[in-house]
Amino acid sequence: MSLSQADVTTERPPYAAWIRSSNNITQQFLSIGGQPDIVSLAGGLPAAELYPVEAIKQASARALDRWGATALEYGPVEGLPALRAAIAARMSREHGRRFEVENILLTTGAMQGLDLIGKVLIDPGDLIVAQFPTYLGALDAWRTRQPAYRKLTWDLDDPDLLAAMRKAKFVYCVPNYSNPTGALVPQNARGGLLSRAVEAGTWLVEDDPYLPLQLDGAAGASILAADAATRRHGTYDGPVVYLGTLSKSVAPGLRVGWIVAEPKLIQLLALAKQCSDLSSSMFSQAVALEYLESGAEAELTARTIACYRERRDALCAAAQAHLGEWFEWEVPPGGMFLWARAKSRDFDTNALYSFALQEKVAFVPSSVFDPDGALTSAMRLNFTRNAPDRLAEGVLRLRRAVQAYLAASKVRV
Amino acid sequence: MSLSQADVTTERPPYAAWIRSSNNITQQFLSIGGQPDIVSLAGGLPAAELYPVEAIKQASARALDRWGATALEYGPVEGLPALRAAIAARMSREHGRRFEVENILLTTGAMQGLDLIGKVLIDPGDLIVAQFPTYLGALDAWRTRQPAYRKLTWDLDDPDLLAAMRKAKFVYCVPNYSNPTGALVPQNARGGLLSRAVEAGTWLVEDDPYLPLQLDGAAGASILAADAATRRHGTYDGPVVYLGTLSKSVAPGLRVGWIVAEPKLIQLLALAKQCSDLSSSMFSQAVALEYLESGAEAELTARTIACYRERRDALCAAAQAHLGEWFEWEVPPGGMFLWARAKSRDFDTNALYSFALQEKVAFVPSSVFDPDGALTSAMRLNFTRNAPDRLAEGVLRLRRAVQAYLAASKVRV
Repeated sequence: MSLSQADVTTERPPYAAWIRSSNNITQQFLSIGGQPDIVSLAGGLPAAELYPVEAIKQASARALDRWGATALEYGPVEGLPALRAAIAARMSREHGRRFEVENILLTTGAMQGLDLIGKVLIDPGDLIVAQFPTYLGALDAWRTRQPAYRKLTWDLDDPDLLAAMRKAKFVYCVPNYSNPTGALVPQNARGGLLSRAVEAGTWLVEDDPYLPLQLDGAAGASILAADAATRRHGTYDGPVVYLGTLSKSVAPGLRVGWIVAEPKLIQLLALAKQCSDLSSSMFSQAVALEYLESGAEAELTARTIACYRERRDALCAAAQAHLGEWFEWEVPPGGMFLWARAKSRDFDTNALYSFALQEKVAFVPSSVFDPDGALTSAMRLNFTRNAPDRLAEGVLRLRRAVQAYLAASKVRV
Repeated sequence: MSLSQADVTTERPPYAAWIRSSNNITQQFLSIGGQPDIVSLAGGLPAAELYPVEAIKQASARALDRWGATALEYGPVEGLPALRAAIAARMSREHGRRFEVENILLTTGAMQGLDLIGKVLIDPGDLIVAQFPTYLGALDAWRTRQPAYRKLTWDLDDPDLLAAMRKAKFVYCVPNYSNPTGALVPQNARGGLLSRAVEAGTWLVEDDPYLPLQLDGAAGASILAADAATRRHGTYDGPVVYLGTLSKSVAPGLRVGWIVAEPKLIQLLALAKQCSDLSSSMFSQAVALEYLESGAEAELTARTIACYRERRDALCAAAQAHLGEWFEWEVPPGGMFLWARAKSRDFDTNALYSFALQEKVAFVPSSVFDPDGALTSAMRLNFTRNAPDRLAEGVLRLRRAVQAYLAASKVRV
């Protein structure tokens, strides 16, 4: 899925160096998602039928009545002040201490937060210690800055890890329902990671988009909360850089995300944002604020959890029946993904992918979650986008693809 | 206006190198714009009272009725297909040949277009040949990629210019009502620049946000149109990379801009966009489409032009009465800015700036439009944001600031 040589060469001046190490995986998945004959278990899309269309319509009218021309203005780079304050209050409720407006930067989805972190902290060759396997979107966001990676595999007592952290610009992790694995990082591992990061003096980026999607009970305290508990007074100035979003609990099309960090870093992230797009859509932010103030989010989240729980169970049941010979997994306690690991280390999910497309089903092969591309024995299956019967159909197609792949290859299973 | 040493140092891992060469000018101006006791002639803001609040309210309701959940979805990276098609049709109407959907990428304002061009084309040290003085936002957007600059001063027969273009990643210009000068680049200079760029084999970035603001008659054909005229058949594949926006003709808060370019470059710009924010707000794009399809833009643009013409004339008259001893300028035939050049080369508008703030008036000193910061004898005055009487008051304050500056300094005038 790398870009072809034809894609990256030109008779005009050459493209930036990172293009040659890039891929168009996400674009392929977005494109596949638009083809109705393919069952896509690939993307990370919410259930569109849950989007609160009517409530957003009402929120739009209220936002324009309330804000008038301000809703159609360039905003402050940091975001609509009233939404920024609402997010500061939300973070204070959720993470165990008071966060100030100065701790918050509103972004175009959490994805822009990742991009801004790369802009402010990474020069070519700089080191990132990243939870492994690693969220594809983070690898994408930082690729344009050409970092090096050290994989974090929770070997927290490894002295090499601490040495790497001392050299790293930051540590990156997704403790809640990690993408791609769906796993919860245990509380003791969160605490251990924070201790190591503090000891090493580095930033710790906690990416938390799936927080609302707690399918089997509470997610537990965030790393931000653990750090905040050690700094109860004054404005938050710890090393945690936390990313949140409304994309999973309201709707991704509003593109409302945020960063929580110490104020000086927030100011530099805002500078990077100004260099990126001057400001996000004030209109979207004003509409999001109206929606949040209406109090409708809690009920929507409850419906979302019920829907996703049913879909997760449907996917797991179908996978158990039709893929259990070849794959194993843990049932994800939340989030959007099932991480299926081949029992045979020879199994190559990159090779499986083309057989899957022939069977009109798509998934994400594990290699794209590895900075080195070497992890080829697993796959990520999304359970939120499709209804249970469609998920079951997808798994049946995937079974046929596995059979075709095994017949054509020499893999022993 | 550079960032202080305290701003750019940290006990945690150091920030990326570009931060140390940065400034927070735009943030300062945005902040000053929010202080009601200061007359800000600094920013580049439209007249907020013209924003079509009621029409956008209606467009929002229609957009959600028409698109439902699609308007709240992650979009295709390239943008809402129907708006992309509408922009392709608009470009075809305005620039003399047919442009395909594949030639168009929708962006979060034209500012994101500049950022994406830097991401795809610039590695540290790469050369940009940029119209001089240069739009501050472009310098901001590209600073994170650490380019070098060669100033384009329309010495088109200079062999050094052609040699520089051969080495450059791209040429950058704002032919219509340039920011900061407000000048129209003459048609023969546009043609000459295009010829040199084609001869040098480089990209030519034509930034055209002010196209709708034609205060004194037609702006003339774009460079894109000039290039298109030499390529009448097939999909557009020329070297011009054109940037457009709805920020000046509808409202900036929608954050709807676009890039026109050859399809292969559009695909790489889309890849860079996916790495930046996955997609812009589909909701904003759906609302913009409804507004455009309503046909209201033409009448709004006519009102905008009438309003800005009155304001430009008011600013010019006040400046002639109160600043004419020290400054000279050409009346800008369009756009948003008056570019006042000190008659004395010793005049330092950086020094004037603090006197201006004491008098509660703000402008943009010329140094920020110079990649080297060496141009210190001019200033940019915005005429679109304030009503005529407020503009006159601002000029009176500026006169007092000039008098205070001259009294305190040794400048001979």
